[in-house]
This record gives sequence, structure tokens and C-alpha cells, in this order.
Amino acid sequence: MDFAYGPGKNHLFVPGPTNIPEHVIRAMNRNNENHRTPAITALTKSLLDDITKIFKTTSGTPFLIPTTGTGAWESALTNTLSPGDRIVSFLIGQFSLLWIEQQKQLNFNVDVVESDWGESANLDILESKLASDKTHAIKAICIVHNETTTGVTNDLTKVRKLLDEYRHPALIIVDAVSSIGAIDLRMDEWGIDVVVTSSQKALSLPTGMGIVVASPKAIEASKSAKSLRSFFDWNGYLKFYKTGAYWPYTPSIQMLYGLRAGLDLIFEEGFENVLLRHKRLAKATRLAVEAWGLKNCCQKEEYYSASVTAIVVPPNIDSGEIVSRAWKKYNLSLGVGLNKVAGKVFRIGHVGHLNELQLLGCLAGVEMTLKDVGYPVKLGSGVGAASAYLQNNIPLIPSRI
Amino acid sequence: MDFAYGPGKNHLFVPGPTNIPEHVIRAMNRNNENHRTPAITALTKSLLDDITKIFKTTSGTPFLIPTTGTGAWESALTNTLSPGDRIVSFLIGQFSLLWIEQQKQLNFNVDVVESDWGESANLDILESKLASDKTHAIKAICIVHNETTTGVTNDLTKVRKLLDEYRHPALIIVDAVSSIGAIDLRMDEWGIDVVVTSSQKALSLPTGMGIVVASPKAIEASKSAKSLRSFFDWNGYLKFYKTGAYWPYTPSIQMLYGLRAGLDLIFEEGFENVLLRHKRLAKATRLAVEAWGLKNCCQKEEYYSASVTAIVVPPNIDSGEIVSRAWKKYNLSLGVGLNKVAGKVFRIGHVGHLNELQLLGCLAGVEMTLKDVGYPVKLGSGVGAASAYLQNNIPLIPSRI
Amino acid sequence: MDFAYGPGKNHLFVPGPTNIPEHVIRAMNRNNENHRTPAITALTKSLLDDITKIFKTTSGTPFLIPTTGTGAWESALTNTLSPGDRIVSFLIGQFSLLWIEQQKQLNFNVDVVESDWGESANLDILESKLASDKTHAIKAICIVHNETTTGVTNDLTKVRKLLDEYRHPALIIVDAVSSIGAIDLRMDEWGIDVVVTSSQKALSLPTGMGIVVASPKAIEASKSAKSLRSFFDWNGYLKFYKTGAYWPYTPSIQMLYGLRAGLDLIFEEGFENVLLRHKRLAKATRLAVEAWGLKNCCQKEEYYSASVTAIVVPPNIDSGEIVSRAWKKYNLSLGVGLNKVAGKVFRIGHVGHLNELQLLGCLAGVEMTLKDVGYPVKLGSGVGAASAYLQNNIPLIPSRI
Amino acid sequence: MDFAYGPGKNHLFVPGPTNIPEHVIRAMNRNNENHRTPAITALTKSLLDDITKIFKTTSGTPFLIPTTGTGAWESALTNTLSPGDRIVSFLIGQFSLLWIEQQKQLNFNVDVVESDWGESANLDILESKLASDKTHAIKAICIVHNETTTGVTNDLTKVRKLLDEYRHPALIIVDAVSSIGAIDLRMDEWGIDVVVTSSQKALSLPTGMGIVVASPKAIEASKSAKSLRSFFDWNGYLKFYKTGAYWPYTPSIQMLYGLRAGLDLIFEEGFENVLLRHKRLAKATRLAVEAWGLKNCCQKEEYYSASVTAIVVPPNIDSGEIVSRAWKKYNLSLGVGLNKVAGKVFRIGHVGHLNELQLLGCLAGVEMTLKDVGYPVKLGSGVGAASAYLQNNIPLIPSRI
Repeated sequence: MDFAYGPGKNHLFVPGPTNIPEHVIRAMNRNNENHRTPAITALTKSLLDDITKIFKTTSGTPFLIPTTGTGAWESALTNTLSPGDRIVSFLIGQFSLLWIEQQKQLNFNVDVVESDWGESANLDILESKLASDKTHAIKAICIVHNETTTGVTNDLTKVRKLLDEYRHPALIIVDAVSSIGAIDLRMDEWGIDVVVTSSQKALSLPTGMGIVVASPKAIEASKSAKSLRSFFDWNGYLKFYKTGAYWPYTPSIQMLYGLRAGLDLIFEEGFENVLLRHKRLAKATRLAVEAWGLKNCCQKEEYYSASVTAIVVPPNIDSGEIVSRAWKKYNLSLGVGLNKVAGKVFRIGHVGHLNELQLLGCLAGVEMTLKDVGYPVKLGSGVGAASAYLQNNIPLIPSRI
Repeated sequence: MDFAYGPGKNHLFVPGPTNIPEHVIRAMNRNNENHRTPAITALTKSLLDDITKIFKTTSGTPFLIPTTGTGAWESALTNTLSPGDRIVSFLIGQFSLLWIEQQKQLNFNVDVVESDWGESANLDILESKLASDKTHAIKAICIVHNETTTGVTNDLTKVRKLLDEYRHPALIIVDAVSSIGAIDLRMDEWGIDVVVTSSQKALSLPTGMGIVVASPKAIEASKSAKSLRSFFDWNGYLKFYKTGAYWPYTPSIQMLYGLRAGLDLIFEEGFENVLLRHKRLAKATRLAVEAWGLKNCCQKEEYYSASVTAIVVPPNIDSGEIVSRAWKKYNLSLGVGLNKVAGKVFRIGHVGHLNELQLLGCLAGVEMTLKDVGYPVKLGSGVGAASAYLQNNIPLIPSRI
Repeated sequence: MDFAYGPGKNHLFVPGPTNIPEHVIRAMNRNNENHRTPAITALTKSLLDDITKIFKTTSGTPFLIPTTGTGAWESALTNTLSPGDRIVSFLIGQFSLLWIEQQKQLNFNVDVVESDWGESANLDILESKLASDKTHAIKAICIVHNETTTGVTNDLTKVRKLLDEYRHPALIIVDAVSSIGAIDLRMDEWGIDVVVTSSQKALSLPTGMGIVVASPKAIEASKSAKSLRSFFDWNGYLKFYKTGAYWPYTPSIQMLYGLRAGLDLIFEEGFENVLLRHKRLAKATRLAVEAWGLKNCCQKEEYYSASVTAIVVPPNIDSGEIVSRAWKKYNLSLGVGLNKVAGKVFRIGHVGHLNELQLLGCLAGVEMTLKDVGYPVKLGSGVGAASAYLQNNIPLIPSRI
Repeated sequence: MDFAYGPGKNHLFVPGPTNIPEHVIRAMNRNNENHRTPAITALTKSLLDDITKIFKTTSGTPFLIPTTGTGAWESALTNTLSPGDRIVSFLIGQFSLLWIEQQKQLNFNVDVVESDWGESANLDILESKLASDKTHAIKAICIVHNETTTGVTNDLTKVRKLLDEYRHPALIIVDAVSSIGAIDLRMDEWGIDVVVTSSQKALSLPTGMGIVVASPKAIEASKSAKSLRSFFDWNGYLKFYKTGAYWPYTPSIQMLYGLRAGLDLIFEEGFENVLLRHKRLAKATRLAVEAWGLKNCCQKEEYYSASVTAIVVPPNIDSGEIVSRAWKKYNLSLGVGLNKVAGKVFRIGHVGHLNELQLLGCLAGVEMTLKDVGYPVKLGSGVGAASAYLQNNIPLIPSRI
């Protein structure tokens, strides 16, 4: 049944899809059910009530859409904007690029603010654009919270501050695909209007659920947005929310039960503890990278990502070869370099349901792979550096104390 | 974990989502994997090669889209048509109605041909429209193969014949959501241009995969279609098909393995045997309905559906009460009457991975429920009538002879 | 992977192994764990506390043994008796016969009281034996609560009464393999000393756990019992119970979690409701048998089993052919006739996690099979008779009211 | 549902129960089936045919017994020996001790040959006993192939050689619980008479199946062995083998399918490759131990175990504290020191379905735990030493080349 079987566990360290907890796999191990029963209604209600906690919003309206992150992007855009609307969008890596392509495809007037890959969104340029936009032609700021290509996390609070300073009414639409659940995002406190994520990242589910949360202002905007939309139309959901039936079309029963189990685990661990765990794994990874004498693709410490670390290889090495060899020899799945950084970086995803020893196994695998491809790494150096930090910082597991 | 637990097996007889075979549940019981490995590429290739067999096409291009049937509809429309395009669409029940609403939402010029619910698509009107459309303003004929609301199966060969007679180049776009895998559809032989289905019907998978197959003519049309589209854009797929990476965005690994297992079962049973089994279950259901003295919502024998039977209840009975009681007392899930036939019909879905004794258990449950709600049915009458037919027509299971 | 695949669900109506609830399958879907952690200790404790509720004892000591019912039998015997001990044992069918063979193999002096197959244990003979046993040479009465071969349930209260009347100290050792969880057994109230069951019957788990519960008197007896024993030795368990480690050898983690889930379901349904459900299914089965004009192998109504019904076929029919055909044509698994009743009876197991529509599907299958093999049954007659009773007696599912 | 939840994967490195491959978990994820069908017969036959390959015998008869290793021990003894028989048994650790206790409990005349824990079986003493046993009073040599307490693997070929030299007819009965599937054992070539293992070790299944393979000589011995036995009696099996029904009692369907999947994986990897992988992991572990400056409990290199390494801690450290802390802080399950070596050693099991990065994650966890408890280890030192060896010795995964 498997197409490339290897002994032992596959070490999954791409920045998505991520490792599914056994609990979630179990919860999803079930037959279909009629989605029009009080049982599924009650389950759905519990999910809509709880999912917003991960987005830190009490005023937002969540939409659980049978789609991927790409579809969730589209949902965020077409429900709040009209064709031709001017939007400011930051290009800092492959995923922001793909989103910008979508924005163009959907006929928005995209004002692209480009940074070098490895840099964060250039907010100085945003400021100048806002300053000069007296007519409020800019309808939305589209920004990727965590650029998975480069391991750069943008500071969303600064975007909010700029809009407030200039009393600009543009919506803030955030791609939080690889951040929600791993990196703090406070939708209400930070005044974000639409946040988009998908199931196969920090939520540690299979692919298949795009999640969009809309602020009251975004819901208001959706009433006049003229983009054609059907499958992604929020109105379909809102109509069904009112009746209590919730679903305009058949949801995946399995994904609903999976999300329930996943949220239960997050709350059992404590959501803030989950965020701390991600920070800890990221820091450990960076210490290993440093010990190996390699560079982080992300240029500034303040933007280091808690989800993924993109590592720059020396010019004589092809990062694709590292990824390929890790899979073929160590059953280790790493992320390749994409587009501009293809061949130049490889990525370690440390997002989702993971713990420290899993990461250290991965780092040991990376060390051996580096040596395999001719990079003169001291074996054990990265693991040692990471361990030194972790040993001092891993808390006891509360249920086991 | 369950929200309305009842002892024993849930008897799932809604016309979707349908019963998932244990083999498929098993195949999907797995962790995520990196979707960018040769393993997933090989798996995907095998699926694209095999899925078309169910559609009986060798020239069609399949798209496996992380979405529902509603999304698959949108994919079929926006990839082949431009806003304002005139399309002829048949309204014969709730699902054709919803599709028509989508067609309007997406700004097509929809020429609705309505029939009474329980009747098939009015092809006489289609003929007159084709006859008068000298300029070929009609760009597509949109037709639901099997209307799940009423249990009516349209004869697609007649649509083809009419277009041929009038040498009309309109595309034929077919909603085969509740037919593919259960009711014969020969895409190549019948000259269908786009066929749309989804995973949770006769394919007996969880919800979450919309499947669209496009004829070469449809692919050609997609090159000039001006509808805005991003997530549903076929070009995204086609570009990736060329590179051999296959996926423009992250697919659900679990659904891919599930589809593989599901197709394997279909081929093991023999696809023609699967179609015969659906016919047999449908015939048995109708014989029970007749024995109960009730009427089929579908008005003519030639349009009887092999996927679902909609049963008209006497005026003094609320069909919703039947569905509700069956669930509350017998752990039996039936389909409600929708929209115009709400309260008037209930539905028995006999589609997907089912066998005869499962159906007879359902029919026994329906009999008791009918009696519960005051309809004077003779208990055992429907099961007896169905059994008489089945006993003579069920073949031995080949692997057990 | 399957060796004789057939479409749809397998209809499992042998009197064990029985249908496993989806909840239990899910709970068992897990990796191994170290069995020497506080987690498994806590789980085990919860099981030992709860399992005795099913046996209706507060004074009994439970042993969860990695074995089958045959092994559990041996555990009951060798822990309480010494080689050469005289025991009275009732032969009323194949399973009592096998147990008697084991008793002889283990060198006990077995006083066999035989009845015709279809009759219950002859307690008159027991009485005369007790009356004449002034020296209390009889050390134990071994009795099968429910003889699965013939569908006969013995009345254990009468055994107790006789022992009390004659102030006889013999132990009562009960094979409750196919009764516990399906048929009322009150260990404390009835003064039973050892009760034996196994996981794959009414508890609806996989095979692999033998469960033995011992009264204080049985525990006392184990201190002087001289039968050699090692794996089945209760002392091994008792020693570990004292330390709180519980397990003298490695248990199946999966079975422990499965039992936890199974008990949770039983308590959710309500244990008395579970027993009523078994009675209801048994009664419905017998009504069908009567409608078919066939005879129950069990000769008296007061001994009818709530777990299994053995049905006598006319002399011109081979019951083995019925079982074989049901499997080959209808994917229906029935029980064969064993030993003396081979070819003469077939059996419908209605034990474990089952509901009424599942049973009615089975009965419909039996009807068709009977017709297939030439018995002139009216199709629908049995299902109708069973339905008439069930429709009046099935309660609403509490969680769905 | 879990009693002590911790985030991420549990790192299971006890020497059993071991990690179950996802493929096996999937294969076991199923409802019960009637075990008396041609399907289960065919499955069983395939297992009996294939299991002997792991024991490297073509003449041996396998018994798959629903029990643990302790039960399998009993099966080996009581089927081949009579009470009072003299047997020579080697005491070299906790598991040989427990087996000896069983041997005494079962009334054999046990001639115990004791070694210091950490030493292998003293074969010089065996030689002297054989030399003086002119009457062939010694009926069997009982020896543990791999003593899990100390990580010592005995050399079975030497036992054979001694018996041959002295033309002694004693049976060789081997506990291969923690060796079969991990350490080479050639039943036919080495002239072993009974080999015992269980499912939860190198076979990487749940607990619940004891496996005993008997040579023709052992089968012959069973005909005159006078030990009382019922559940463990080989005759029960042999009788059913002849009829082709295979099972004297109900087997666990799930374990059968699990074993099938497990064997398939072993053959896919190549059995010799599986053995090499175990050697590689063991060597890497020992290199780490050396780098930490700790001692192997096993005293001589030639007896180093490929399944488990027992590590001696300095006198000031309690090894139990290491195991406890690893579980509480790192979700890492290690083996404790047992009996004589309690508090003095901890154990790393490297047996079953494991790969190198899993082991390196474990080693990293051990390093941190050592530091936690005050042992001055250089973090990264063990991982580095292990990696240096592994990087040079791990082959590419054949299916991925």
C-alpha cells in the first residue's frame, strides 16, 4: 500500500502537513454520519465556540471551509473586496508571492511591496503609502504573518499602529496559515479583520479544512463586496448559522471530530504552553544551526519564526540534495528551498504536535545529512547546542508531576 | 466523544454521505506525509489513471480538488464559461435549484427549464431552444444526472442526440454527484464535456474531494473562459501535471490513500457488478415501497434512480417526523424531503458501499417507523417483497464460491 | 489484504466473536506503551473497579488474563481445586463438553451429569448427589450459565438454593463466557464463587482477554489448592495488586483501552438497558423462528437464551449448508451446529453490541437462505413477526429524545 | 481518554512492548470476524507458513497461542517434560530467574546454573554436568537467548556443540522472547528444540500472542510428556491442524491480521536487513554509552545484545530516577533496572520497528536526563559518537533509491 516504504517512523519536519497526534487519528477513524442530525449540530457549535480562542477573538465569526489554505485566501479576499479594489500586499517569499498572484488573478489592483527574501514586510513603504492615500483608496492590507519560505514572522502590531496613526480604514487581512496555533496572534487586541489558516499546520490535522475568522468590520465589508463568489461565499454560512443547521454543504464528519480532538489536546496542554513549546523548539533549532556554522535565512532576530527555520547552505552545496538524501537515507522529511531560494536553503518545520526529542532526532539527521553532502559539520554539535538550551527550559509534563 | 450515542450500528441511508468500507477507513488511518515525495507522486499518478475508468473516459482530464460537490460545480462552470454566457439549466429538484442559484451568483445568463419535482428534465424545451439558437449563443447545457431530491435520473444520451441533431457546439456539463459509481455514465461514448462528482457519495469516502473530469473540448474552452477563478483554476493543476508534481496546493494524504483503497475495492468487485448491485438495491427498495402502498416521487419508471428513492407519504403524515423518529428510535438515518417536497417525501439512499441485508434492515426500520407515525403498513410486507426479488437475483460473492 | 472480500458490511451473527463498537475500535487504534507507568496503573485500577459491576459483585476479586475463555476456565479450576478433587459438572452441549474434557485433562474426578442437548442442567441429579455427599467430597459444582451450542440458559439460583439446603460447602464455578454482559448474573446475591468470561462475547471486544472473578471463598480456596499452575496462578496477580503494579506480565495496552471504552458504552447505555436489549433481540428472534415454522433447540421457554438462538432445521436440510450459503451469498455469518447437533441446527448469535435493525437484516438473510436451500418459508414472515414485537418495545434512544 | 497526556510522540524505548508500525496498527483496525471461515483459514495458513522463516526452520511446527511470553514458556515446558524431570537452567538475570521460578512451580527438578548479572550463561558448568550425566537424567537445557535485564545474548551454538560432544539427548528449550526478529537464531542449523517468543517485542505487535516453535524431536517428546496441560496443550492445535480448522479456540482476528502485516513489512525490508538494522542500532547505543563515560552491564563484547543495552550508573545516582524523569520531562520511556540491578542500571530497548533518528532522539533525551540527575555528561557527546558510526553505515532505503 505504501509507495516507498522505509523502516521505522517517518520523521516529518516539513512546515506542513504536520504530525497528527494519535488522539486525532483515532477520533477521525470513523464511518460517515448524516450531517443533518442534532449530534453534528452540537459538535459544530462546540467547534465554532472554541476555534476562536486560538485566534484570540470574541467578536470574530469563524468559517470552517472544506478547502485548503489557498481556498481560504480566496474566501478572505472575495468576501471583503470588489474587483479593482486597491490593496497593499507584501512580497517576502513564495507564499506571499502565490497569494499576490491570486490577488491579481481575482482582479484586484495589487500594490506590491517587495522585500529581499529573508527580510520582513517593509512597513516604511506601507507608511508612505498610507500617508499619501488621503482618499482611502487602499481597501486592504494583505500580509502573511509567517512566511514559510524564509522563516520570517511579520510584526502585525506595527501594521495596526500605522493604520491607527493615519486613521486609515483599510482592512487588515492576514495569512496565518503557518502561524495560528504556533505563534501568538491576537485578533481582537491587534485589530485584525480577517485571519486565514488551514488544518494541516499547527492544528496538526489532515489537509482539508480552511479556517477564516472575520471581524465585525470584515463581516460588514462583505455586505457590499462585489467579487463574484459562490462556494466561498460567507453568506451561505451566515444564513445557515442563523437556522442552526450550520452547513451550507456537506462537511467532512471526520475533520470535525478531528478538530474537536485537536482542540481538546491544545486546551489540555494549555494554549499558552503550546505557544511556548513552539518558541522553545524554534530556539533550539536556531542554536543547532549556529553550532553548525550555518546561517538563518531570516535576517533579523526579531522576525525569527517559531514555526519554521530556513537554513542557508554554502554556495557549493545544493540544498535540494540535502532534502532528497535525508528522505532516502534517514526517512526524514525536510522542506526544500522554493523559487528564489531553491537550492540555497532547506527548511526545518517545527510546527504542530511535536516534542523536543522528536526535534533532536531530526537535528541529528540533519547533521549526518550535512556530512553526507560534504559539509564539514561536527556530528553532535547541533544536537548538543540545542540540548543545552532545552535541558534547562523544558518544563515537566503537568499530568505526570 | 459522541454527541448522541445509540447502541449498535448507525444505519446510514441518507443519499450521502454514505457508508465508508472498513478497508477505506483503515487506509485513511495514518499520519500526514510530505506531499512532495516520489511516493505521493506515484500514488497520485495511479489515482489519476484509474479514476477516469469510473467516468468511462480515456480522453478526459481529471481534477481531484480539495472541496465539496458545490465547489466542484463552481470549478466546472468558471473554467469553461465567461460571465454573461448563456446556459440552459434544468430545474427538477433542490440540487438542480442550488446549482442554478450558483450559476446566477457567478453571473451567467441562466435559461432555466423547470419541470415538476418528480419529473425529469424537459428536453422538448431544450430542443426548441436549440432549434432557435442559430447563433450558438447557448454555451453550455447544465444538467443534473441524478436529482437526489426526487430520485430522478435524467437520460444524458438524449441531450447528446439533440445537440448532434442541431449541430450545436454547446458544452454538456453534468452534475453526477450522486450518480458516478452508482449509475452508468459513459463520458466518452455519450460526448459529455464536464462531469462533476464528490467523494462522499458512491465512492464511499469522507467528504472533502470534489472530482471534475473535463473532455478535450472542455479543456480547450478553459483557455478562453473569462470567469475569474483562482482556487478552482484548472490551469494550476495542468501546470503541475506537466512538471509531474501534480498538486498546486497541499492535498489530503488521507483522502488520496482512501481513494486508492476505494477504487481497489470497486475494481475487485468489478465496476459493472457495482452498477448492477446499485440497480438491484434500488429495485428492491421500490418493490418495498409498492408493497407498503406508497408512491415513488419519481413519476416514470424510465427515470427511476439507482442511487436514491424518494417516497411520497400520505397527506396526513409529516415525512420529517418519519426521519426524526427513525433516528431517535431505530438509529436509522434517512433523507428528509427538501424545499417543495419538505414534509411530503422521505428518502432512502441506497448508494455506495452497501449490501442487500443492510438494505433489508433499513426497510424493516422504515416499516416500523411508518407504523409508529400512524401509517397502516403490514410489517414484513416491504421486506418480503424486496426479499422475493433479491433472493432470486443476488449472485454468489465471487471470492467465496 | 482480505482473503474473501464481499461488498458491504459483514453481518456478524455468530455467538462470538461479536461486533466491536466503532468507539472501541477507535480506542484500540494506538501504539504500544510502557505498561509500567502511572498512566497504565490508573487505567488498570479503573478497569478492576468497574468490571465487577458487570458481574454484580462488590466482594469479588477480578483477574484480567491475556488468554481466551478456555484459558479462563483453566484459571478457575486450577486455582481452586487440587488434582483428584471430585467435582460435579453438567454436560448439556459442546461447550460444557469441552470444559468437562479440560477438567478430566487436569486430573479432577469429574462427576458428569448429562442432559439431552437442548435441555438444561439436571439439577435433580445434583440434588441427589448433594444429599448423599455427607463427607463433602464434592469440592465444586461446575456449570455453564449459557450453553452456546443449544441456546440454553441454566438457572444458577437453583444451584445456590440446593447447596444452601444441604449446607454443602462446594464452590460454584460458572462458565459465563456467553452470558456476562448479556444475561443477568448476580455474583454476590446468588453466591457464585468463580465466574469466567472472555472479551469477545457480550463485552464486544477482540478475543484475547479472559476475565475471572473470584469470591472471597474462592480466594481462600486458592490458598490450599494444589493444582500446579504458573501462568494462570492468581497469586501472581494478587502479589502485584498489593504493590499497585497490577500486572505480573505485560498486558495488551490496546485491550485495556478497549475494555475501558466498552465499559464506558455499557454504562452510558445503562447496564440494565443492555440486558433488556439482549432480551428484546432474543425474543424477536424466537418470534421469527416461530413464524418460519421452525423449532428452537432449547426445549423450555424458561431456559431460552438471551445471547443465542439455536434453530432446528427439518431432517431433509443440512444446517451446515445454510451457514455456508449465508456467508457466500449474503455476507452473513451464522453459527453452525456443533457435535451432536451438527447439520441439525444453525445458530443466530444476538449478543454484544447490536441493535434491532441489524438483527432484522440478519433475519431477512436467514429467510432468503432458508428458501435457497429448499425450505418453504414465506419471505418477510419472520421479519414481520419480529418487527411487530420490536416496534412496540424498542424505547427511544435516551440521548436523542 | 489518556491518563497522563504529554505533547508530541511518546518515545518508547523499553525493551518491549515496542513500537507498532502504522501499517500494523492499520491492519488491526477492524471489526471481529467469524474465525471459522475459509478466509481466516487461508490467513492462518499463510501465517504458519511464514512465521517459521523468522525462526529459520523448515522442520519446526509453530503454535500461535493467545497468551504472553510467560504462557509461551509454560507451553514449551509442559508439552515436552514430565513433573520431576531434571532440567538445567541458567540464571543470569530477572527473566531467566522468573522462568526458573516457573519451572519450579511446575514441579520440575531444576538444576540452576547461576552467573553474575551481566555475565552470560556458564557453559563450563553445563559441560561438567553433561559429562557426569551418564544416565541422561537431564531432560532439557533451558536457556534465555537474550537476557533483557542485562543486555546479554547467550551463544546457543555452544550449547548445541556441548550436547553433540557428549552425545546427550537433552532438549534445548530457548526463551527467544526478546531475540527472535532482532537477533539471529537458526533453529534448524543450531538444533534447537523449542523456541519461545511473544508478539510485543521484535515483531512489533501488541501483546497477546505467544509463539512457540517445536522441532520434530520436541513434538515427539510431547507424546510422552506427562505434565498436566489443557490450554497450552499442543495436541489441541495438532488435532485442528490436521482438520484444517487450525484453531482449538477463538483466536484474535486482529492479531492475525496484525501479524500478517508485520511479517509483510519484515520481508519487504528483508529479514537479514532487519537483523543488520538491530545490530546497527545496538552498536550506536553502545558508542553513546562509551562517550558518556558509562559502563555496559553486559561484561563481554561477544555477548552484547542487539535488542537492549543495560547501562550502569555511578553509585551516587539512582537509575530509577533517570527512568522516572525521562518519562515526566521528555516523554521518553526507558527500562528500569530489575531486582539485583534495581537502581543500578537503566535500559535502552532498541528492538522492533525503529530507525536511527528515533534512536538518536532517545539518546539525546538520555543525555539531558543524565545531566538532570547530576551526572556530568557533555551534551551531544553520545549522539555525536553514535552519529559518526551511523552516518557511515546506514544504507539508502531500497524503495527510495
